[in-house]
Amino acid sequence: MSHRSYAVIGTGAIGGYYGACLQQAGLELHFLLHSDYQDVQEHGLIVESPKGNFTLPQVNAYQDAAQMPPCDVAIVALKATQNHLLPKILPAVVKDNGIVLLLQNGLGAEEKVAEILPSQQVIGGLCFICSNKVAPGHIRHLDYGNIKISEYTPNYQPCGITESMRQVASDLESAGIEIALGEDLLLTRWEKLVWNIPFNGLSVVLDTTTEQMMADQEVRLLAEQIMQEVALAAKTAGDRLISQTYIQNRLEYTAKMKPYRTSMKIDYDSQRPMEIEAILGNPLRAATAAGAHLPRIQMLYQQLKFLETKNRSD
Amino acid sequence: MSHRSYAVIGTGAIGGYYGACLQQAGLELHFLLHSDYQDVQEHGLIVESPKGNFTLPQVNAYQDAAQMPPCDVAIVALKATQNHLLPKILPAVVKDNGIVLLLQNGLGAEEKVAEILPSQQVIGGLCFICSNKVAPGHIRHLDYGNIKISEYTPNYQPCGITESMRQVASDLESAGIEIALGEDLLLTRWEKLVWNIPFNGLSVVLDTTTEQMMADQEVRLLAEQIMQEVALAAKTAGDRLISQTYIQNRLEYTAKMKPYRTSMKIDYDSQRPMEIEAILGNPLRAATAAGAHLPRIQMLYQQLKFLETKNRSD
Repeated sequence: MSHRSYAVIGTGAIGGYYGACLQQAGLELHFLLHSDYQDVQEHGLIVESPKGNFTLPQVNAYQDAAQMPPCDVAIVALKATQNHLLPKILPAVVKDNGIVLLLQNGLGAEEKVAEILPSQQVIGGLCFICSNKVAPGHIRHLDYGNIKISEYTPNYQPCGITESMRQVASDLESAGIEIALGEDLLLTRWEKLVWNIPFNGLSVVLDTTTEQMMADQEVRLLAEQIMQEVALAAKTAGDRLISQTYIQNRLEYTAKMKPYRTSMKIDYDSQRPMEIEAILGNPLRAATAAGAHLPRIQMLYQQLKFLETKNRSD
Repeated sequence: MSHRSYAVIGTGAIGGYYGACLQQAGLELHFLLHSDYQDVQEHGLIVESPKGNFTLPQVNAYQDAAQMPPCDVAIVALKATQNHLLPKILPAVVKDNGIVLLLQNGLGAEEKVAEILPSQQVIGGLCFICSNKVAPGHIRHLDYGNIKISEYTPNYQPCGITESMRQVASDLESAGIEIALGEDLLLTRWEKLVWNIPFNGLSVVLDTTTEQMMADQEVRLLAEQIMQEVALAAKTAGDRLISQTYIQNRLEYTAKMKPYRTSMKIDYDSQRPMEIEAILGNPLRAATAAGAHLPRIQMLYQQLKFLETKNRSD
């Protein structure tokens, strides 16, 4: 059992699930909460999962990062739309030689974390998980759950497998979470975008689930065409190669997934801000600036921006 | 006053409005109706219009084309999704030397009418009108109303201004309708598609009106980008040139229009079939076969096909 302590910033579908698994495995956890603070302080965390349901009646819950002890590892699992809060939160919750594990989708966040905490290690983690928060402090894990982690370096130069990565992987594995170690964070981020751009985006625009999209031949083709544009963007903006095999595997994985309302759709349905800039805007701007022509991703971005404005003004 | 008789096939927002105007001007009209037959037979037609409201308490209403007298002109104003009915209807309602005026959007219908009636003249008319049917036999004309007509010839060879066009124009003008005579039907059809493809399509996908779309900078740009693709399609598939000036004029016209729910949106909201194939599918297939790359129009088509399937299975 490791003696590393963990701060969880953003105790929702992702942070709540992984944090609860770590505490259930015996690690020391500290959870930062916002609207769910009172509930979790009183009732703890509830996890439903096909791997087994469990409840943590008592957790270290905080509503103010300044009250939290500096931890060995901070898991950042806020929505990317909340990242403007990090400059205030992070310095308080991570030890000087600590690690930040950023469990977020999209492009562009590690640079900002590294600016806030220049002496700490920053690891990016891409979660392949279907998980929703169904009530305050109540997480419903539906399917999958593996994480691919890679360490961030300036300009995303691949840096191999580091000691920080091994420590974090060891803790997560002790909690029953499958971890893959990646040597190239930027490639992993682009690979994740291959799924997130089409399926998050189209699920909102078409008001639908992954299952309905994959069952419709028009939308299945459109999703694949968008995936091809993401691969082009990865090549143009990041000089990273996404193979045709990878794209086909993602399509097959999606077809076999349980029916799933994507995280962007859940945010939209709840009239919360969507991660449009992290997932579509930043990759689109980076690749367009590098010369790529991405009409479908741009159109999806335009449609989502319109729907967000309309949704939040209703 | 002309003595030409008119059959109106499809007495809805378009056929009902123009037919009522012609009868109000003193011409002989015969209206084919389906679900509204009983209402119109009993109560006639009601037209609300900024040009003046009027009621026609008595009209010649039919629910069976076989009961109608052969007329000098048949105005076809069915939804394009109903064109499979024309082989049964048209031979009964047009005189041997008569004229068919096809008031429909999209590509591909004139060829089929000419096959059904090889000895009659076929004129295509593109209506620039905001008009809705708000109740059985009750038409609300909101804005505009001009029609551009051109005669159909095999392969859409431009054929100049014909005598049939002059006759139809004269009758419609006597009813206060502004008519433009075009020498090139195919160009006029593609020009109309420049508006119909983006605004009909996006109004359904984004659940919105023309006003909201034009007020949003992302969607205004997207609409213009789709217009550029329509211009490319017109060039590639039809060797027709749509100028940048035309595109800018259409955008300005749309920005100045009264807030308008497009006809495709009205069909969608009523769970009726949308004119996806006439407006998007046929132009897309023609231009793609000719070598054009139209990612945005294809994406809009794919989205609409999905939404139609979902809408009609609800």
